[in-house]
Amino acid sequence: MEKGALLYEGKAKRLYATDQEDVLFVEYKNSATAFNGQKKAEIEGKGILNNKISTIIFEKLKQQGIESHFIQKVSENEQLVKKVEIIPLEVVVRNMAAGSFSERLGIEEGTPLKRPIVEFYYKNDALNDPLITNNHIEILCIATKEEVETLANLALKVNEALKEIFQTIGVILVDFKLEFGRDREGNILLADEISPDTCRLWDAETKEKLDKDVFRRDLGSLTDVYNIILSRLGGK
Amino acid sequence: MEKGALLYEGKAKRLYATDQEDVLFVEYKNSATAFNGQKKAEIEGKGILNNKISTIIFEKLKQQGIESHFIQKVSENEQLVKKVEIIPLEVVVRNMAAGSFSERLGIEEGTPLKRPIVEFYYKNDALNDPLITNNHIEILCIATKEEVETLANLALKVNEALKEIFQTIGVILVDFKLEFGRDREGNILLADEISPDTCRLWDAETKEKLDKDVFRRDLGSLTDVYNIILSRLGGK
Ligand SMILES: Nc1ncnc2c1ncn2[C@@H]1O[C@H](COP(=O)(O)OP(=O)(O)O)[C@@H](O)[C@H]1O
Ligand SMILES: Nc1ncnc2c1ncn2[C@@H]1O[C@H](COP(=O)(O)OP(=O)(O)O)[C@@H](O)[C@H]1O
Ligand SMILES: [Mg+2]
Ligand SMILES: [Mg+2]
Repeated sequence: MEKGALLYEGKAKRLYATDQEDVLFVEYKNSATAFNGQKKAEIEGKGILNNKISTIIFEKLKQQGIESHFIQKVSENEQLVKKVEIIPLEVVVRNMAAGSFSERLGIEEGTPLKRPIVEFYYKNDALNDPLITNNHIEILCIATKEEVETLANLALKVNEALKEIFQTIGVILVDFKLEFGRDREGNILLADEISPDTCRLWDAETKEKLDKDVFRRDLGSLTDVYNIILSRLGGK
Repeated sequence: MEKGALLYEGKAKRLYATDQEDVLFVEYKNSATAFNGQKKAEIEGKGILNNKISTIIFEKLKQQGIESHFIQKVSENEQLVKKVEIIPLEVVVRNMAAGSFSERLGIEEGTPLKRPIVEFYYKNDALNDPLITNNHIEILCIATKEEVETLANLALKVNEALKEIFQTIGVILVDFKLEFGRDREGNILLADEISPDTCRLWDAETKEKLDKDVFRRDLGSLTDVYNIILSRLGGK
Protein backbone atom coordinates (compact mmCIF):
# COMPACT_ATOMS: atom_id res chain seq x y z
CA MET A 1 0.00 0.00 0.00
CA GLU A 2 1.38 3.41 -1.06
CA LYS A 3 1.54 6.25 1.48
CA GLY A 4 -0.02 9.20 -0.35
CA ALA A 5 -0.74 12.83 0.51
CA LEU A 6 -0.99 14.08 4.07
CA LEU A 7 -4.72 14.61 4.62
CA TYR A 8 -4.82 15.80 8.22
CA GLU A 9 -2.43 16.41 11.05
CA GLY A 10 -4.01 16.13 14.48
CA LYS A 11 -2.55 16.46 17.95
CA ALA A 12 -1.47 12.79 18.14
CA LYS A 13 -1.63 11.32 14.63
CA ARG A 14 -1.21 12.12 10.95
CA LEU A 15 -3.58 10.74 8.33
CA TYR A 16 -2.38 9.99 4.80
CA ALA A 17 -4.23 8.92 1.70
CA THR A 18 -3.39 5.56 0.12
CA ASP A 19 -3.97 4.25 -3.40
CA GLN A 20 -7.28 2.91 -2.12
CA GLU A 21 -10.11 5.46 -1.73
CA ASP A 22 -11.41 4.09 1.57
CA VAL A 23 -8.13 3.20 3.27
CA LEU A 24 -5.92 5.59 5.26
CA PHE A 25 -2.40 5.44 6.58
CA VAL A 26 -2.27 6.51 10.25
CA GLU A 27 1.07 7.65 11.62
CA TYR A 28 1.28 7.92 15.41
CA LYS A 29 3.25 11.00 16.45
CA ASN A 30 5.52 11.48 19.45
CA SER A 31 3.50 14.53 20.58
CA ALA A 32 1.83 14.47 23.96
CA THR A 33 -0.83 17.12 24.55
CA ALA A 34 -3.24 17.81 27.38
CA PHE A 35 -5.88 20.36 28.37
CA ASN A 36 -6.94 20.89 24.76
CA GLY A 37 -3.37 21.41 23.57
CA GLN A 38 -2.38 23.94 26.25
CA LYS A 39 0.26 21.54 27.60
CA LYS A 40 2.54 19.98 24.99
CA ALA A 41 5.68 17.89 24.72
CA GLU A 42 7.53 15.69 22.25
CA ILE A 43 8.21 12.31 23.81
CA GLU A 44 10.57 9.97 21.97
CA GLY A 45 8.99 6.55 21.55
CA LYS A 46 5.40 7.55 22.33
CA GLY A 47 4.15 7.10 18.75
CA ILE A 48 5.55 3.58 18.56
CA LEU A 49 4.07 2.64 21.94
CA ASN A 50 0.59 3.87 21.05
CA ASN A 51 0.65 2.30 17.61
CA LYS A 52 1.56 -1.06 19.16
CA ILE A 53 -0.91 -0.82 22.04
CA SER A 54 -3.76 0.37 19.82
CA THR A 55 -3.04 -2.46 17.39
CA ILE A 56 -3.19 -5.11 20.11
CA ILE A 57 -6.42 -3.69 21.52
CA PHE A 58 -8.21 -3.41 18.17
CA GLU A 59 -7.13 -6.99 17.41
CA LYS A 60 -8.41 -8.26 20.77
CA LEU A 61 -11.72 -6.43 20.26
CA LYS A 62 -12.04 -8.03 16.84
CA GLN A 63 -11.54 -11.47 18.41
CA GLN A 64 -14.48 -10.63 20.66
CA GLY A 65 -16.65 -9.67 17.71
CA ILE A 66 -16.22 -5.91 17.95
CA GLU A 67 -15.36 -4.42 14.56
CA SER A 68 -13.27 -1.28 14.15
CA HIS A 69 -11.57 0.76 11.45
CA PHE A 70 -8.28 -1.09 12.11
CA ILE A 71 -6.90 -3.06 9.16
CA GLN A 72 -3.28 -3.80 10.04
CA LYS A 73 -0.08 -2.50 11.54
CA VAL A 74 2.38 -1.63 8.78
CA SER A 75 5.40 -0.29 10.65
CA GLU A 76 6.58 0.60 14.15
CA ASN A 77 4.45 3.75 14.20
CA GLU A 78 1.95 3.28 11.37
CA GLN A 79 -1.23 1.37 10.75
CA LEU A 80 -3.79 1.11 7.97
CA VAL A 81 -7.41 1.89 8.77
CA LYS A 82 -10.72 2.12 6.97
CA LYS A 83 -11.55 5.71 6.18
CA VAL A 84 -14.70 6.95 7.85
CA GLU A 85 -16.49 10.25 8.25
CA ILE A 86 -15.77 10.94 11.91
CA ILE A 87 -18.79 11.86 14.05
CA PRO A 88 -17.57 14.87 16.05
CA LEU A 89 -18.26 13.31 19.43
CA GLU A 90 -15.94 12.07 22.11
CA VAL A 91 -17.84 9.14 23.53
CA VAL A 92 -16.64 8.67 27.09
CA VAL A 93 -17.38 5.63 29.25
CA ARG A 94 -16.72 5.80 32.97
CA ASN A 95 -16.52 2.97 35.50
CA MET A 96 -15.11 5.14 38.28
CA ALA A 97 -15.10 8.86 38.99
CA ALA A 98 -11.94 10.63 37.81
CA GLY A 99 -10.71 13.78 36.10
CA SER A 100 -13.29 16.27 34.84
CA PHE A 101 -16.14 14.04 36.03
CA SER A 102 -14.88 14.22 39.62
CA GLU A 103 -14.48 17.97 39.37
CA ARG A 104 -17.83 18.59 37.69
CA LEU A 105 -19.86 16.55 40.15
CA GLY A 106 -17.75 16.75 43.28
CA ILE A 107 -17.23 12.97 43.46
CA GLU A 108 -13.84 11.87 44.71
CA GLU A 109 -11.49 10.32 42.15
CA GLY A 110 -11.60 6.54 42.40
CA THR A 111 -15.20 6.29 43.57
CA PRO A 112 -16.76 3.34 41.70
CA LEU A 113 -19.97 4.22 39.84
CA LYS A 114 -22.96 1.98 40.46
CA ARG A 115 -23.06 1.31 36.71
CA PRO A 116 -20.87 2.35 33.76
CA ILE A 117 -22.06 5.63 32.29
CA VAL A 118 -21.66 7.11 28.82
CA GLU A 119 -21.08 10.81 28.20
CA PHE A 120 -20.85 12.72 24.95
CA TYR A 121 -18.45 15.60 24.43
CA TYR A 122 -18.64 17.78 21.34
CA LYS A 123 -15.29 17.26 19.55
CA ASN A 124 -14.59 20.91 18.82
CA ASP A 125 -11.25 22.38 19.89
CA ALA A 126 -12.52 25.98 19.51
CA LEU A 127 -15.27 25.27 22.05
CA ASN A 128 -12.98 23.22 24.30
CA ASP A 129 -14.76 19.88 23.75
CA PRO A 130 -17.78 20.67 25.96
CA LEU A 131 -19.98 18.04 27.59
CA ILE A 132 -23.26 17.95 25.69
CA THR A 133 -26.63 16.25 26.13
CA ASN A 134 -28.60 14.11 23.69
CA ASN A 135 -30.78 17.16 22.98
CA HIS A 136 -27.72 19.21 22.06
CA ILE A 137 -26.57 16.46 19.67
CA GLU A 138 -29.96 16.61 17.98
CA ILE A 139 -30.04 20.44 17.83
CA LEU A 140 -26.52 20.50 16.35
CA CYS A 141 -27.49 17.77 13.84
CA ILE A 142 -24.37 15.83 14.86
CA ALA A 143 -26.13 12.48 14.83
CA THR A 144 -29.65 11.10 14.77
CA LYS A 145 -31.40 9.82 17.88
CA GLU A 146 -30.92 6.26 16.61
CA GLU A 147 -27.21 6.82 16.01
CA VAL A 148 -26.79 8.25 19.52
CA GLU A 149 -28.39 5.12 20.93
CA THR A 150 -26.15 2.95 18.77
CA LEU A 151 -23.07 4.88 19.94
CA ALA A 152 -24.00 4.47 23.61
CA ASN A 153 -24.67 0.75 23.19
CA LEU A 154 -21.47 0.15 21.25
CA ALA A 155 -19.47 2.13 23.81
CA LEU A 156 -20.86 0.01 26.65
CA LYS A 157 -20.07 -3.15 24.68
CA VAL A 158 -16.49 -1.97 24.14
CA ASN A 159 -16.35 -1.20 27.87
CA GLU A 160 -17.26 -4.78 28.81
CA ALA A 161 -14.62 -6.16 26.47
CA LEU A 162 -11.91 -3.68 27.50
CA LYS A 163 -12.60 -4.09 31.23
CA GLU A 164 -11.93 -7.77 30.85
CA ILE A 165 -8.86 -7.31 28.66
CA PHE A 166 -7.34 -5.02 31.28
CA GLN A 167 -8.50 -7.01 34.30
CA THR A 168 -6.64 -10.02 32.93
CA ILE A 169 -3.40 -8.02 33.04
CA GLY A 170 -3.96 -6.53 36.50
CA VAL A 171 -5.18 -3.14 35.32
CA ILE A 172 -8.35 -1.26 36.27
CA LEU A 173 -10.14 0.49 33.41
CA VAL A 174 -11.29 3.72 35.09
CA ASP A 175 -12.63 5.49 32.00
CA PHE A 176 -11.90 5.96 28.30
CA LYS A 177 -12.80 7.95 25.21
CA LEU A 178 -13.90 6.52 21.88
CA GLU A 179 -14.52 8.06 18.48
CA PHE A 180 -16.82 6.62 15.87
CA GLY A 181 -17.35 7.31 12.20
CA ARG A 182 -19.68 6.44 9.35
CA ASP A 183 -18.37 4.27 6.52
CA ARG A 184 -19.45 4.65 2.90
CA GLU A 185 -22.68 2.77 3.57
CA GLY A 186 -23.47 4.93 6.62
CA ASN A 187 -22.67 2.12 9.07
CA ILE A 188 -21.21 3.24 12.36
CA LEU A 189 -17.67 1.98 12.95
CA LEU A 190 -15.33 2.31 15.93
CA ALA A 191 -12.37 4.48 14.84
CA ASP A 192 -9.44 6.59 16.09
CA GLU A 193 -7.26 4.92 18.74
CA ILE A 194 -7.50 3.07 22.04
CA SER A 195 -4.35 3.63 24.05
CA PRO A 196 -3.13 5.05 27.38
CA ASP A 197 -3.69 8.45 25.72
CA THR A 198 -7.42 7.76 25.63
CA CYS A 199 -7.96 5.47 28.65
CA ARG A 200 -7.42 5.95 32.39
CA LEU A 201 -5.64 2.78 33.49
CA TRP A 202 -4.65 2.07 37.09
CA ASP A 203 -2.55 -0.79 38.38
CA ALA A 204 -5.03 -3.05 40.18
CA GLU A 205 -2.69 -3.59 43.16
CA THR A 206 -0.86 -0.31 43.66
CA LYS A 207 -3.42 1.98 41.95
CA GLU A 208 -0.43 3.52 40.13
CA LYS A 209 -1.53 5.53 37.09
CA LEU A 210 -0.49 3.89 33.83
CA ASP A 211 -1.86 6.44 31.38
CA LYS A 212 -1.62 10.01 30.10
CA ASP A 213 -2.42 11.41 33.57
CA VAL A 214 1.30 10.77 34.24
CA PHE A 215 1.96 13.52 31.69
CA ARG A 216 -1.06 15.73 32.55
CA ARG A 217 -0.15 15.75 36.24
CA ASP A 218 3.66 15.41 35.99
CA LEU A 219 3.75 12.08 37.81
CA GLY A 220 6.72 10.48 36.09
CA SER A 221 7.86 9.04 32.76
CA LEU A 222 5.10 8.56 30.22
CA THR A 223 7.05 5.98 28.21
CA ASP A 224 7.79 3.95 31.36
CA VAL A 225 4.11 3.45 32.13
CA TYR A 226 3.04 3.00 28.48
CA ASN A 227 5.75 0.33 28.26
CA ILE A 228 4.22 -1.44 31.27
CA ILE A 229 0.84 -1.52 29.50
CA LEU A 230 2.40 -2.73 26.24
CA SER A 231 4.36 -5.52 27.85
CA ARG A 232 1.47 -6.69 30.05
CA LEU A 233 -0.65 -6.85 26.88
CA GLY A 234 1.98 -9.23 25.51
CA GLY A 235 3.63 -6.73 23.15
CA LYS A 236 7.19 -5.45 23.08
CA MET B 1 -50.14 34.12 59.16
CA GLU B 2 -47.21 34.80 61.52
CA LYS B 3 -43.72 35.38 60.09
CA GLY B 4 -41.48 33.07 62.12
CA ALA B 5 -37.77 32.27 62.17
CA LEU B 6 -35.49 32.94 59.21
CA LEU B 7 -34.86 29.49 57.74
CA TYR B 8 -32.62 30.30 54.79
CA GLU B 9 -31.15 33.33 53.13
CA GLY B 10 -30.37 32.84 49.45
CA LYS B 11 -28.99 35.20 46.85
CA ALA B 12 -32.41 36.66 45.95
CA LYS B 13 -34.87 35.65 48.66
CA ARG B 14 -35.24 34.90 52.36
CA LEU B 15 -37.39 32.02 53.61
CA TYR B 16 -39.16 32.23 56.97
CA ALA B 17 -41.16 29.69 58.91
CA THR B 18 -44.82 30.37 59.62
CA ASP B 19 -47.15 28.93 62.24
CA GLN B 20 -48.07 26.30 59.67
CA GLU B 21 -45.57 23.46 59.21
CA ASP B 22 -45.86 23.31 55.42
CA VAL B 23 -46.15 27.02 54.63
CA LEU B 24 -43.25 29.44 54.18
CA PHE B 25 -42.95 33.19 54.02
CA VAL B 26 -40.81 34.25 51.04
CA GLU B 27 -39.27 37.71 51.15
CA TYR B 28 -37.85 38.97 47.87
CA LYS B 29 -34.59 40.85 48.42
CA ASN B 30 -33.18 43.82 46.52
CA SER B 31 -29.95 41.94 45.76
CA ALA B 32 -29.00 41.32 42.17
CA THR B 33 -26.32 38.68 41.58
CA ALA B 34 -24.82 37.14 38.48
CA PHE B 35 -22.12 34.65 37.50
CA ASN B 36 -22.73 32.54 40.61
CA GLY B 37 -22.57 35.54 42.93
CA GLN B 38 -19.32 37.01 41.53
CA LYS B 39 -21.17 40.16 40.42
CA LYS B 40 -23.43 41.73 43.06
CA ALA B 41 -25.48 44.87 43.66
CA GLU B 42 -28.31 46.12 45.83
CA ILE B 43 -31.05 47.56 43.64
CA GLU B 44 -33.82 49.51 45.37
CA GLY B 45 -37.21 48.24 44.27
CA LYS B 46 -36.04 44.94 42.75
CA GLY B 47 -37.59 42.78 45.48
CA ILE B 48 -40.99 44.40 45.08
CA LEU B 49 -40.87 44.07 41.30
CA ASN B 50 -39.98 40.37 41.38
CA ASN B 51 -42.53 39.59 44.07
CA LYS B 52 -45.25 41.25 41.97
CA ILE B 53 -44.16 39.70 38.67
CA SER B 54 -43.73 36.24 40.16
CA THR B 55 -47.18 36.50 41.76
CA ILE B 56 -48.86 37.42 38.48
CA ILE B 57 -47.10 34.62 36.62
CA PHE B 58 -47.88 31.90 39.18
CA GLU B 59 -51.52 33.10 39.16
CA LYS B 60 -51.70 32.97 35.37
CA LEU B 61 -50.15 29.49 35.34
CA LYS B 62 -52.72 28.35 37.88
CA GLN B 63 -55.52 29.65 35.62
CA GLN B 64 -54.07 27.42 32.92
CA GLY B 65 -54.07 24.41 35.20
CA ILE B 66 -50.41 24.49 36.22
CA GLU B 67 -50.03 24.18 39.97
CA SER B 68 -47.15 25.71 41.90
CA HIS B 69 -46.01 26.33 45.46
CA PHE B 70 -47.54 29.84 45.32
CA ILE B 71 -50.30 30.52 47.85
CA GLN B 72 -50.70 34.31 47.96
CA LYS B 73 -48.95 37.65 47.96
CA VAL B 74 -48.96 39.09 51.46
CA SER B 75 -47.08 42.37 51.07
CA GLU B 76 -45.16 44.42 48.52
CA ASN B 77 -42.17 42.09 48.75
CA GLU B 78 -43.49 38.94 50.39
CA GLN B 79 -45.52 35.93 49.44
CA LEU B 80 -46.65 32.71 51.09
CA VAL B 81 -45.71 29.42 49.48
CA LYS B 82 -46.09 25.73 50.16
CA LYS B 83 -42.93 24.33 51.67
CA VAL B 84 -41.25 21.69 49.54
CA GLU B 85 -38.02 19.76 49.59
CA ILE B 86 -36.23 21.44 46.69
CA ILE B 87 -34.72 19.08 44.11
CA PRO B 88 -31.23 20.51 43.54
CA LEU B 89 -31.67 20.99 39.80
CA GLU B 90 -32.02 24.11 37.74
CA VAL B 91 -34.39 23.00 35.01
CA VAL B 92 -33.73 25.23 32.02
CA VAL B 93 -35.97 25.45 28.95
CA ARG B 94 -34.66 27.13 25.82
CA ASN B 95 -36.58 28.35 22.77
CA MET B 96 -33.65 30.28 21.32
CA ALA B 97 -29.89 30.11 21.75
CA ALA B 98 -28.54 32.60 24.30
CA GLY B 99 -26.05 32.95 27.13
CA SER B 100 -24.09 29.89 28.21
CA PHE B 101 -25.88 27.74 25.61
CA SER B 102 -24.58 29.96 22.79
CA GLU B 103 -21.10 29.89 24.23
CA ARG B 104 -21.07 26.14 24.91
CA LEU B 105 -22.27 25.12 21.47
CA GLY B 106 -21.09 28.03 19.32
CA ILE B 107 -24.63 28.96 18.23
CA GLU B 108 -25.27 32.67 17.81
CA GLU B 109 -27.51 34.31 20.41
CA GLY B 110 -31.03 34.69 19.07
CA THR B 111 -30.94 31.62 16.84
CA PRO B 112 -34.33 29.88 17.18
CA LEU B 113 -34.08 26.21 18.15
CA LYS B 114 -36.05 23.75 16.03
CA ARG B 115 -37.85 22.66 19.20
CA PRO B 116 -37.73 23.78 22.84
CA ILE B 117 -35.08 21.89 24.76
CA VAL B 118 -34.75 21.10 28.45
CA GLU B 119 -31.40 21.10 30.26
CA PHE B 120 -30.56 20.18 33.83
CA TYR B 121 -27.96 22.01 35.88
CA TYR B 122 -26.85 20.73 39.26
CA LYS B 123 -27.87 23.45 41.76
CA ASN B 124 -24.60 23.54 43.68
CA ASP B 125 -22.84 26.86 44.16
CA ALA B 126 -19.55 25.19 45.16
CA LEU B 127 -19.48 23.36 41.81
CA ASN B 128 -20.72 26.41 39.88
CA ASP B 129 -24.08 24.89 38.87
CA PRO B 130 -22.67 22.57 36.17
CA LEU B 131 -24.70 21.23 33.25
CA ILE B 132 -25.39 17.56 33.93
CA THR B 133 -26.90 14.66 32.03
CA ASN B 134 -29.71 12.29 32.99
CA ASN B 135 -27.05 9.71 33.86
CA HIS B 136 -25.36 12.14 36.23
CA ILE B 137 -28.69 12.84 37.95
CA GLU B 138 -29.10 9.11 38.48
CA ILE B 139 -25.52 8.59 39.71
CA LEU B 140 -25.87 11.49 42.14
CA CYS B 141 -29.26 10.12 43.34
CA ILE B 142 -30.75 13.60 42.81
CA ALA B 143 -33.96 12.25 41.32
CA THR B 144 -35.31 9.02 39.90
CA LYS B 145 -35.61 8.39 36.16
CA GLU B 146 -39.37 8.85 36.42
CA GLU B 147 -38.98 12.14 38.27
CA VAL B 148 -36.54 13.42 35.64
CA GLU B 149 -39.10 12.63 32.96
CA THR B 150 -41.82 14.37 34.99
CA LEU B 151 -39.59 17.43 35.43
CA ALA B 152 -38.86 17.65 31.70
CA ASN B 153 -42.53 17.28 30.79
CA LEU B 154 -43.67 19.83 33.37
CA ALA B 155 -40.98 22.26 32.23
CA LEU B 156 -42.14 21.97 28.61
CA LYS B 157 -45.75 22.49 29.71
CA VAL B 158 -44.75 25.61 31.65
CA ASN B 159 -42.89 26.75 28.53
CA GLU B 160 -46.00 26.52 26.37
CA ALA B 161 -48.03 28.50 28.92
CA LEU B 162 -45.31 31.11 29.51
CA LYS B 163 -44.57 31.57 25.82
CA GLU B 164 -48.18 32.49 25.29
CA ILE B 165 -48.40 34.75 28.35
CA PHE B 166 -45.40 36.71 27.10
CA GLN B 167 -46.37 36.67 23.44
CA THR B 168 -49.65 38.38 24.37
CA ILE B 169 -47.67 41.27 25.83
CA GLY B 170 -45.19 41.57 22.97
CA VAL B 171 -42.35 39.73 24.66
CA ILE B 172 -40.30 36.80 23.35
CA LEU B 173 -39.53 34.08 25.90
CA VAL B 174 -35.96 33.14 24.96
CA ASP B 175 -35.22 30.78 27.87
CA PHE B 176 -35.90 30.36 31.58
CA LYS B 177 -34.96 28.41 34.69
CA LEU B 178 -37.36 26.55 36.97
CA GLU B 179 -36.93 24.81 40.29
CA PHE B 180 -39.14 22.03 41.55
CA GLY B 181 -39.60 20.38 44.91
CA ARG B 182 -41.33 17.42 46.51
CA ASP B 183 -44.26 18.07 48.84
CA ARG B 184 -45.02 15.95 51.91
CA GLU B 185 -46.64 13.27 49.75
CA GLY B 186 -43.64 13.19 47.38
CA ASN B 187 -45.54 14.94 44.58
CA ILE B 188 -43.45 17.19 42.39
CA LEU B 189 -44.45 20.85 42.58
CA LEU B 190 -43.20 23.90 40.69
CA ALA B 191 -41.45 26.17 43.23
CA ASP B 192 -39.01 29.09 43.59
CA GLU B 193 -39.76 32.12 41.37
CA ILE B 194 -40.52 33.05 37.78
CA SER B 195 -39.33 36.57 37.08
CA PRO B 196 -36.97 38.54 34.84
CA ASP B 197 -34.25 37.18 37.16
CA THR B 198 -34.96 33.67 35.90
CA CYS B 199 -36.23 34.26 32.34
CA ARG B 200 -34.62 35.81 29.26
CA LEU B 201 -37.28 38.16 27.88
CA TRP B 202 -36.84 40.22 24.71
CA ASP B 203 -39.15 42.88 23.35
CA ALA B 204 -40.78 41.28 20.30
CA GLU B 205 -40.37 44.40 18.15
CA THR B 206 -37.08 45.97 19.20
CA LYS B 207 -35.44 42.80 20.64
CA GLU B 208 -34.49 44.95 23.64
CA LYS B 209 -33.51 42.83 26.65
CA LEU B 210 -36.08 43.06 29.46
CA ASP B 211 -34.41 40.78 32.01
CA LYS B 212 -31.40 40.26 34.26
CA ASP B 213 -29.01 40.36 31.27
CA VAL B 214 -29.39 44.16 31.62
CA PHE B 215 -27.54 43.75 34.93
CA ARG B 216 -25.22 40.92 33.86
CA ARG B 217 -24.05 42.84 30.79
CA ASP B 218 -24.41 46.43 32.07
CA LEU B 219 -27.02 47.39 29.49
CA GLY B 220 -29.04 49.89 31.53
CA SER B 221 -31.42 50.15 34.47
CA LEU B 222 -32.69 46.83 35.80
CA THR B 223 -35.74 48.37 37.47
CA ASP B 224 -36.69 50.21 34.25
CA VAL B 225 -36.97 46.98 32.29
CA TYR B 226 -38.52 44.93 35.14
CA ASN B 227 -41.11 47.74 35.39
CA ILE B 228 -41.89 47.33 31.69
CA ILE B 229 -42.54 43.61 32.24
CA LEU B 230 -44.68 44.27 35.32
CA SER B 231 -46.83 46.89 33.64
CA ARG B 232 -47.27 44.89 30.44
CA LEU B 233 -48.43 41.98 32.61
CA GLY B 234 -51.09 44.35 33.97
CA GLY B 235 -49.43 44.97 37.35
CA LYS B 236 -48.20 48.18 38.87
N1 LIG C 1 -10.80 5.88 10.34
C1 LIG C 1 -10.70 7.22 10.33
N2 LIG C 1 -11.09 7.93 9.25
C2 LIG C 1 -10.98 9.28 9.23
N3 LIG C 1 -10.54 10.01 10.26
C3 LIG C 1 -10.14 9.35 11.37
C4 LIG C 1 -10.22 7.94 11.48
N4 LIG C 1 -9.79 7.59 12.72
C5 LIG C 1 -9.48 8.73 13.35
N5 LIG C 1 -9.68 9.79 12.58
C6 LIG C 1 -9.41 11.20 12.88
O1 LIG C 1 -8.03 11.41 12.76
C7 LIG C 1 -7.69 12.64 13.35
C8 LIG C 1 -6.27 12.59 13.85
O2 LIG C 1 -6.18 12.07 15.13
P1 LIG C 1 -5.62 12.96 16.32
O3 LIG C 1 -4.19 13.30 16.08
O4 LIG C 1 -5.97 12.23 17.56
O5 LIG C 1 -6.47 14.30 16.10
P2 LIG C 1 -7.14 15.33 17.12
O6 LIG C 1 -6.06 16.26 17.52
O7 LIG C 1 -8.20 15.99 16.26
O8 LIG C 1 -7.73 14.52 18.25
C9 LIG C 1 -8.79 12.90 14.37
O9 LIG C 1 -9.56 14.02 13.92
C10 LIG C 1 -9.65 11.65 14.31
O10 LIG C 1 -11.01 11.93 14.55
N1 LIG D 1 -41.44 26.23 48.18
C1 LIG D 1 -40.18 26.18 48.61
N2 LIG D 1 -39.85 25.44 49.69
C2 LIG D 1 -38.57 25.38 50.12
N3 LIG D 1 -37.56 26.04 49.54
C3 LIG D 1 -37.83 26.80 48.45
C4 LIG D 1 -39.14 26.91 47.93
N4 LIG D 1 -39.09 27.71 46.84
C5 LIG D 1 -37.79 28.08 46.68
N5 LIG D 1 -37.03 27.55 47.65
C6 LIG D 1 -35.59 27.74 47.85
O1 LIG D 1 -35.42 29.00 48.44
C7 LIG D 1 -34.06 29.36 48.39
C8 LIG D 1 -33.94 30.85 48.35
O2 LIG D 1 -34.03 31.39 47.05
P1 LIG D 1 -32.82 32.16 46.41
O3 LIG D 1 -32.54 33.41 47.15
O4 LIG D 1 -33.14 32.26 44.95
O5 LIG D 1 -31.63 31.15 46.72
P2 LIG D 1 -30.32 30.70 45.90
O6 LIG D 1 -29.30 31.75 46.12
O7 LIG D 1 -29.98 29.37 46.54
O8 LIG D 1 -30.77 30.54 44.45
C9 LIG D 1 -33.50 28.58 47.19
O9 LIG D 1 -32.58 27.61 47.68
C10 LIG D 1 -34.73 27.89 46.61
O10 LIG D 1 -34.40 26.63 46.05
MG1 LIG E 1 -7.33 12.69 19.05
MG1 LIG F 1 -32.26 31.37 43.31
